[in-house]
Amino acid sequence: MKKFVNDPKQFVPEMLQGIALANPDTLRYVPAYNLIHRADAPNNNKVTIIQGSGSGHEPAHVMTVGRGMLDGACPGDVFAAPPLDFITETVKLLASEKGVLLLVNNYTGDRMAFEMAEEVAEADGLKVRTLFIDDDVSVKDSTYTVGRRGVAGNFFVMKAVGAAAENGADLDELVRIGEKVNSVTRTMGIALTACTPPAKGSPLFELGDDEIEIGVGIHGEPGRRRAKWMPANDIADELLEAILPDLPFESGDRLAVMVNGLGGTPISELYLLYGIVHQKLADKGFMVGRNYVGEYCTSLDMAGASLTLVKLDEEVEALLAEPAEIAVRIF
Amino acid sequence: MKKFVNDPKQFVPEMLQGIALANPDTLRYVPAYNLIHRADAPNNNKVTIIQGSGSGHEPAHVMTVGRGMLDGACPGDVFAAPPLDFITETVKLLASEKGVLLLVNNYTGDRMAFEMAEEVAEADGLKVRTLFIDDDVSVKDSTYTVGRRGVAGNFFVMKAVGAAAENGADLDELVRIGEKVNSVTRTMGIALTACTPPAKGSPLFELGDDEIEIGVGIHGEPGRRRAKWMPANDIADELLEAILPDLPFESGDRLAVMVNGLGGTPISELYLLYGIVHQKLADKGFMVGRNYVGEYCTSLDMAGASLTLVKLDEEVEALLAEPAEIAVRIF
Repeated sequence: MKKFVNDPKQFVPEMLQGIALANPDTLRYVPAYNLIHRADAPNNNKVTIIQGSGSGHEPAHVMTVGRGMLDGACPGDVFAAPPLDFITETVKLLASEKGVLLLVNNYTGDRMAFEMAEEVAEADGLKVRTLFIDDDVSVKDSTYTVGRRGVAGNFFVMKAVGAAAENGADLDELVRIGEKVNSVTRTMGIALTACTPPAKGSPLFELGDDEIEIGVGIHGEPGRRRAKWMPANDIADELLEAILPDLPFESGDRLAVMVNGLGGTPISELYLLYGIVHQKLADKGFMVGRNYVGEYCTSLDMAGASLTLVKLDEEVEALLAEPAEIAVRIF
Repeated sequence: MKKFVNDPKQFVPEMLQGIALANPDTLRYVPAYNLIHRADAPNNNKVTIIQGSGSGHEPAHVMTVGRGMLDGACPGDVFAAPPLDFITETVKLLASEKGVLLLVNNYTGDRMAFEMAEEVAEADGLKVRTLFIDDDVSVKDSTYTVGRRGVAGNFFVMKAVGAAAENGADLDELVRIGEKVNSVTRTMGIALTACTPPAKGSPLFELGDDEIEIGVGIHGEPGRRRAKWMPANDIADELLEAILPDLPFESGDRLAVMVNGLGGTPISELYLLYGIVHQKLADKGFMVGRNYVGEYCTSLDMAGASLTLVKLDEEVEALLAEPAEIAVRIF
C-alpha cells in the first residue's frame, strides 16, 4: 500500500486535523467525537443539520460542513458507522432550539446507531428527526444494507435541506424537503478498480485487469454484475438504462445531472463521461437544468464513477441554486 | 487499461466537449483548435489571458477558464504541446485591444510553440507577451525541459494575473505581476504510482510496489531520486527540505500553501498531508495566509501529490483573494 498516511489507525483523526487547520475561521474540530462543526454552530435561528457515516467517502461529509450545507459531521472510522456516543455527544453539543435533523445514508450499521442516538436525544428533551437516503438503484438489500443504499445522491438532500434551513425552514419542513429530494434522486456507480482501506493495506476485493463492477456500492459491495471493460459510450448506456426507468424519468423532464468520481479517476475522464451522458439525455428529450462534475462521494482511492439524476421542479432547483460555503474548493 | 474513454485519439476532444456542455452559459468550445474560451471573450476592456500546454493536467488549464482567471485555453494532445496553428488562431480569435498575455509552463516543446506564435501574432500587428512559469525546485534540466519545469505553481500566476486583468491592469503590469508571483513560488511533487496515457494504454514508467519518485515531473519525468515508501510525516519533511531553502523562505514569512493531488490520490489523503505540512510550517515560524487543498495540476491518474509554497506580500495576497468563477466546482 502506498498512501499519504502515518499510522493507519490515525488516518481519520489526521485527516480531520488537516481539514480544521485549513479552515480555521469557519470550522471547529472536536477530536473526542471525530466531530467537524461550523464555528458558529449551534445557531438558534436555524435547525441544526448533522450527517454521520463511515469515513472514506470524502468530501462527504466532513468537507461539506459550512453555511448552506451541514452544521456538523461526525464520521466513524473508514467504512464504519460512528459509535453511538459520538453521535449523541455531537447532537447535544450542536442542538439548536429549532431542533436537529440527522441525515443518514441507508446502511444497517449507520441506521442502528442513528436511530438509537435519536432515542437518547429525545429522552434528553431534544427535538430530533432522522432522514434516511437511499438513492442507489443498483441492488435492493446488499452486504451492509436492508433496502437500497444511500450514495452520491445524498449531496442533493444535504444541499436542499441546508439551503432551506439557512432560510429559516422548521424541522417538519426540512423533513418534507429532504424526503422529496430523496424520492426524485437516483444513482448508479461503476468500479474500474477496487479500493484499499488504509488499515487493511490491500485491495478490498478482487477485480480483474479487464473487469469492471456495474452497480458497485461505495464500500466496494457487489453491484448487479461484473463485466468486461467497455467504452465510455457503453458505460453511459448501462448507467442510463438502469436509472431512467427506475423513477421513472420521462422525456421533457428537467434534471440535475451528477457525474461523481469515486476517488481514483481523474476529472478529465469525468468530464468526458459527462459529455456523453449529457448528449444521450438531450437526445432522449431531457433538459439538463444543473450539472455537477467532480468528486462528491468517493470510495477511498477506487477508480470509477457514479451517475446521479434528480428530477427537478421549481422548488428543488431553487434550493440547489442557493449559495453555500464549504471547505472543498479550488480556491 | 480501464478508463472512461472511447477512442483514445478522441480523448481530448471528448473531454473538451464535456466541459463545454457542462458550462453552456459561460464557455465556448472551438473544436478546430482544441479551444475553450470565455463566452464573453475577447473583451476590449481587459488584456486577454491564454494558457496552453499538453492535456492530462486537468483542471489545468481547460477547466480554469472563466472570470478572474483565463480567457482561453488551447491544449495539445495528452502531454503534447499544442500545434502552432492552434495557438496562432486562438490568439487571433481572442485578442483584445489591450493585448494578449500567453502563460506557458517551461517545457521545451511548449516554449518553442508559444515563442513562434508570439512572433506570428506580432507580425499580424497584435500586442502579445509571453510569460514562462518554472516553479519546480526538483531538478534543473529534465526529460522535456531546459531549466526548471513549470508545475502546479502555475495556478498562482494564473490567479494573480487573472485578477489584475479583471481590474484593468495593462499588459506590462500583468507581466510584472506574473513574473513576481513566479519568482516567489516553489513546488515539488512525489509520485506514488505511474500514470497511464489513454493512447499508450499502459503505465508510462515503472515504479515498484514499495517505491516512490521524489521530485517527479507532471509528465512522469524522473525527479531527484527513487525511494522506498515512507510515512506522510517523512514525505512532508522531504518536500519542505527541498522547497524552503530554495527561495529561501524565512521564518516569519506569510505563505500560501498548496497540497495538489496528481490525479489518483483521494482528497482525504491530501488533507492529511496538508495538516502535517501546516503544523511543520507553524513550528518553523511561518504563517499560512491562504491554503489550497485539492487537484490543481494533475498527471492523468497518477497517485501522488505536490507541495507549493508562495511567499506572500500584500499585493500578491490581495490578488489571490479576488473572486473568480471557473468550471471546476463542487456546486
